[in-house]
Parts: sequence; C-alpha cells; structure tokens
Amino acid sequence: MKTDIDRLMKEADLDALLVLGPAAHNAPMIYFTGLAHLSAGFLLVMRGGKAIHFHNPMEREEATATGLETKDIYADYDYPALLEQANRDSNQADALLIEKALTEYKVHGRVGISGKIEFGHWLRTIEFLRSRLPDVEILGEGNLRSVIAKARVTKDDDEIERIRAMGRITTAVVGDVAGFLTSHRVKDGFLVNREGEQLTIGEVKRKINLWLAMRGAENPKGSIFAVGRDAGIPHSAGTDADPIPVGQTILFDIYPCEAGGGYFYDFTRTWCLGHAPDDVLQIYDDVLEVYETVYSAIRANKPCRDYQIQTCELFEAKGHPSILSDPLTTTGYVHSLAHGIGLDVHEAPSFYTKFDDVLLPGSVITVEPGLYYPDRGLGVRIEDTAWMRPDGVLETLVEFPKDLVLKMPGA
Amino acid sequence: MKTDIDRLMKEADLDALLVLGPAAHNAPMIYFTGLAHLSAGFLLVMRGGKAIHFHNPMEREEATATGLETKDIYADYDYPALLEQANRDSNQADALLIEKALTEYKVHGRVGISGKIEFGHWLRTIEFLRSRLPDVEILGEGNLRSVIAKARVTKDDDEIERIRAMGRITTAVVGDVAGFLTSHRVKDGFLVNREGEQLTIGEVKRKINLWLAMRGAENPKGSIFAVGRDAGIPHSAGTDADPIPVGQTILFDIYPCEAGGGYFYDFTRTWCLGHAPDDVLQIYDDVLEVYETVYSAIRANKPCRDYQIQTCELFEAKGHPSILSDPLTTTGYVHSLAHGIGLDVHEAPSFYTKFDDVLLPGSVITVEPGLYYPDRGLGVRIEDTAWMRPDGVLETLVEFPKDLVLKMPGA
Repeated sequence: MKTDIDRLMKEADLDALLVLGPAAHNAPMIYFTGLAHLSAGFLLVMRGGKAIHFHNPMEREEATATGLETKDIYADYDYPALLEQANRDSNQADALLIEKALTEYKVHGRVGISGKIEFGHWLRTIEFLRSRLPDVEILGEGNLRSVIAKARVTKDDDEIERIRAMGRITTAVVGDVAGFLTSHRVKDGFLVNREGEQLTIGEVKRKINLWLAMRGAENPKGSIFAVGRDAGIPHSAGTDADPIPVGQTILFDIYPCEAGGGYFYDFTRTWCLGHAPDDVLQIYDDVLEVYETVYSAIRANKPCRDYQIQTCELFEAKGHPSILSDPLTTTGYVHSLAHGIGLDVHEAPSFYTKFDDVLLPGSVITVEPGLYYPDRGLGVRIEDTAWMRPDGVLETLVEFPKDLVLKMPGA
Repeated sequence: MKTDIDRLMKEADLDALLVLGPAAHNAPMIYFTGLAHLSAGFLLVMRGGKAIHFHNPMEREEATATGLETKDIYADYDYPALLEQANRDSNQADALLIEKALTEYKVHGRVGISGKIEFGHWLRTIEFLRSRLPDVEILGEGNLRSVIAKARVTKDDDEIERIRAMGRITTAVVGDVAGFLTSHRVKDGFLVNREGEQLTIGEVKRKINLWLAMRGAENPKGSIFAVGRDAGIPHSAGTDADPIPVGQTILFDIYPCEAGGGYFYDFTRTWCLGHAPDDVLQIYDDVLEVYETVYSAIRANKPCRDYQIQTCELFEAKGHPSILSDPLTTTGYVHSLAHGIGLDVHEAPSFYTKFDDVLLPGSVITVEPGLYYPDRGLGVRIEDTAWMRPDGVLETLVEFPKDLVLKMPGA
C-alpha cells in the first residue's frame, strides 16, 4: 500500500523517487496523483513521505487538485530561461529543470526513477542530468521488484472497491455481449441479423467498446474475441472480418480500465453458441476442474509459483502438455496461471515458476487456467479477478456464470 | 514519410533503430507495425530498410500479420534459458535477448533507441546491454528531432485519409454535443433536463466518450470541457460536478484517436449558450480575426516560429498580453499557435519561438490561437487540424462552423 512506500524506500536504500510523465495511463504517476488531467510533468517523492508535483503553468489548477505540494516550471523555475541556457536543447533544458528541483529539495544519494514515457527522449535527458549531478545516483526503478511496484501489490479498501466497480462494469458488458450474440439467428452455421447479414467479430468489438464507454470505462488495450483456431492462440485478438460460428469455442477476454487511465479488471469466458462438440466439452471440463481445484488451494503468504506448478501438474495428469515439462510447447497449457492487477493490467506478483513472489494478503490477482489446441481449432480459458483478503480468503471480486454453451433461442 | 527513414538514419549516422514496447499507444512502434495486438516485444530497423519484430510466442500470428520479418523470443531465442542464465533477473534476461538479436543481425555502431514504455525498467535493461556490447553505442532517440519523429512529420496519402476520417468522427461528435446541449431547457441560468435536474460537465463528458466509441474512436487523453473561469486556464479539463451555464464561455477541446492507439485529430470550439456578453463577443472576434489572418498567411517551407510571433504581435496590437513580450504571463495569449499531429497528439513540428522547425509540405498541424482571462471568467480558443498539402495550400481537413453562440430553442 502507499503507506509502505517509505519503508520500502528505506529497504531499497533510496533517498528519493523520481516519477516522469503524464498521469493518465502511467501507473506510478497516477498512484500518487490520482486520476488527473496532467499531460506532462514529474513527481519527486522524498523519504518521509513528502511528494511534490512539478507541472506546466496551463495545468496549475489540475496539479493543485491532486492535494500534493506543487511547483510551476515557469513561475517557479523559469523554464524558458533554462531552455536558453541549454542552447534550446529540450533534453538539456529538462535536465537543468530536474537539477533545480533536486537541488531545491536537497536530494542526494540514490534516486529511483520510473514512469511510462518516451524512452529515448528521457534517456538523453537523464544522461545530461547524470553528467551534472555526480553526487546523485539515478537508478532504474519500475520493474516488478521496484519500490512502487511492491507498494502497489497490496491494495487498500478504496482500491479494492474501485477494482470491484470495474468488475461490475466488465461483467455487465460481458452479459450484454452474451445477450447480443444470442439475439441473432443462425444461418449455415453462422450468426446473422434480421436482414440475414453475417455478424462479424469487428462489429462485436465495436459494441464492446460502446458498452464500456456507456458505463464510464475505457478499453486502451482492446479485447480478445477469438474464434476456433484463433482461440487456440492465447493472445490472438481475433480477426475483425470473421463471422461468428455456432458450435466452436469463442474465447472472450476483456480487460478495461477506469476512464482516464485508472484501475483495471481482467476477465475471460469461453463460449460455444448453440451446442458444444464432445471434444470441446471434455477440454472445458478439464479447465473448469483445474480452475476449481487450484482456486480452492490458493493460500496467502505462499509462493505464487506453487500454484503454477500445481496447475501444470494437474493438466499433465489429464494428458495435456504444459510448459512445466516442455517450456516451448504451444499446445496444452502454455502460460501463467495468474498475475497481479491494479493500475496496470499486468503487475506484481508474478506466478512465473522462475520467480520467488509470495502471495501477500491484500493482493488482487487473476486466476486463469486454459488449454489451447490451435490445430484442433479450439482454445479454452476461464478467468476471474480475485482479492486475497486480509483474513486469508480468496474472494472473486464479481461473480459471473461459467457456462460454456450459450443457448440460441431462435435455433 | 516512412520512405525517408533510411536517408534520415544516414544523416544521423545511425546504423540501426531499436523500438521498444507494445504497439497500441506507442507511436514509434505503431508507425512500423500498424494497429496490431502486440502487447510487448521490440523492433529492429536496419539501414537499408529491413525491419524485424521480436514477439512473444502467444502473439506470433499478430506479429506475422504486420508483414514485417518476425522472430519468436521463445522458439528462436529460448527466453526461459536466458532468464536462467541471467539468474532470473528479467532486466538482465531482456538485455541478453536484445544482445542475441543484435548479434544475429550483425548490428554494430550507433543504435537509436525509442518507444513509450516504463522508463526505469528499461533503463536498467539498457545499462546491462551497454555493459555487454561495448562496440554498440545506444543513443536516446525519440525527441522531436529524432529520426522517426522527423520521418513522421510528413504524411503520405493513407495517413492523411486516416487523420481526416478521425476528423469526421471528431466533428460529428462535436455536432452531437451541440445538439445535446441545446436540447436542454434553461432554469436559473443553467441547463436542466426534462425532470428539471441540472446537466453536469461529467455527464457531457461521458456522452462524448460514448459517441466517440460508437464511431470507432478512442479517447485516451480525455477531453477539455471547461466553463467560465476554468475555460480561462488553457489545459483545465473542467470540473465534472459543475453545472452548465448560459451566457458564459464553454471551451470544448477534443482530441481522440483511432481505436487501438492510432492517428489523432485535435479540434476546439468555444461556445456561449443562448447569448454572449459583450466582452466575450469582443474577445471572440479578436481570436477569430487572428485565426483567419494567421491561417491565410501560413506558407510551406517557412519557419514555424514566424507564425507564432505573428500571432503574438497581432494579439498585442489589440491590447492583449502575450508570451512574446512577457514569457510568464498567464493572461492573454499564453501558448503556441500550433503543433504537428499524427500518431501522437503533439508531435513535430514545434511552433515554439525558440525552435527552428520549418513547415514542410505534407505536414499536418493544428491552428489554435486563443485568449485567456481566468479572473474575468472566460477563455476562448478556436482550433482546426490542417494539412499543408504538397501543392502549398493549407487545407483544413474537416470544416465545421465557428459560431460562438449556440441558440437555445427552448429559451
């Protein structure tokens, strides 16, 4: 939690954190500013908890509204003069600006840097800064083991309720999509509208974006709506021009966030319209059984990898290949069981078997086993987002039915 | 244009470009991949034009669909083994992966790096890479003077049509908003619905997002819908809870992009509902006159700064402060006339007076003079997106009326 930042900085022996970039869609910044219309700027977090946001003058009111201490890069630091001093090189001018800020706040020692921004531009800026501040050591933060990432692993009550609210929106839209699909007729094995025209994946995806926007959510990473063989490749987003068949797996993975770039939810259902072939039913039962077995086994304060290994072993016992025995397999069970989720759709903890992450009370994670057989034209995944509550109970934030077959009333 | 990349690399003495990160909302990557569901990976652009995308195995089909040469980081480079070799440090493993790629493609010399990603994570990775590849010099690209930014300044016909299509969507939504506002009744000086409840800015913004999604656009940076005093602060996004008055300036700036993170459009109108006070009419006339004078003066191959200076001088001649004479002023004319637009909402060329950018034929720019008097409770901006055509004519991509007053039929 945010209240852990100071302790984590101490453990990492960092004297300050420097966070670069806008607020929207920039997790380490929005963690401190909240949803705010700050298109540029930077943030300095001091040991002891003080945080100062440096903003451009046009965004002075938005900066003030964050509740942080603020500095105006024009009124307080005369940025145009710095640009002159830097011979009109904006990277050098930005370095001079950050130097002024670090000097004013007496920052020395080790500074951890992060922020989702244009890498090349800022690499050049930070190299100028390093050459000017030899007594400041600037260290790349921002991976899953960094101070802010570690703080973000455990969520407070407000964060849980925001993620749960996104879950309500997400599952409501999934319900809308199910209703929309089953309101169609079937012709020659594919969905058609009243005019007899085939429904396409592209049209379904446009509806998904529309229904998310209606409920105040944003969909910056798109969604996966993949049919048959495409469903067999876990990240295939589906092909917009394709029609939608009955009796084949539809893998629908949706991961929207709060408008403005805030908290995410992550959710997958696999459907067969009308009916499911026997081999799909068997695969689906295998995934659902593994989901339920592993879900009920998950405990707080245990290594995350244990559950990935358990998932692999359960699938292998049922005769499916997995990346435990064959790390390069592209059939069977080919990805991680889970990941942390919050201001990023993928964040700590990691369930990758090579990492040592422990599942802390207060974490929010996905649970998402799946089986993939692209050559057999099928893929199945079931995913929910769940909260490892402080009392040690793993709670699915929003429940939603796990039926494979969606009946086609008109068929 | 993309066809200029090789020449620009030669001029910058770069042997290769390395672009990091996902495709969506990452301009330098999407410039090469197009809209694609690639959530991670990196791209190597060689002198001579060959580009290779390095993807994770779950996204192999999406990578292939880009038409670029592709490599699978598992099947081709055995990433799990690299992670073992790196003692499970993901930054070191990523460095080993990029090292393998650069070695396979015989990259030596100067490599320009860019991409919108988590800075701290990649700073650490690139520092490992540098320590392992002393004969490769990794240079921060990605500012407005970098190779990819320079290529992106001039747009080909396909890019122009995509930006124009976004302009049609944008102006259609602006028309929807005007119709929505004027369909309300007025009570005690504010808009109310049929039930007599006040319409709020937050509700208008939700409709904007909805209507953009309906038309297949995305709104990753939000929009500005700022009233009265808020309109007087150019980047103030407006206050969601505020009601909407008649007879005050409403500054509505909207800058959506193609769904999936592609081309942007940027557009502003200032409205007064019902009627406009005399002082607002005067300010509006001043802005419109300056808009028309400067717009008709803009020529290809001239320094962009000339038009910023002209705008400042025109406003100052009418008695308004400007940042030409007072760089720190927060009243009068306080920002740049224009900026380039494309895969980023702000890109080259810059019209800032300290820079030397020339307005090249084939560029797409905004034209957006404005006047701001927060203490008088008003702000006015008029903005269109325009194409400097190869024949030297500046063409507004989508025309839309510039009326200040929106009549309230029910009032």
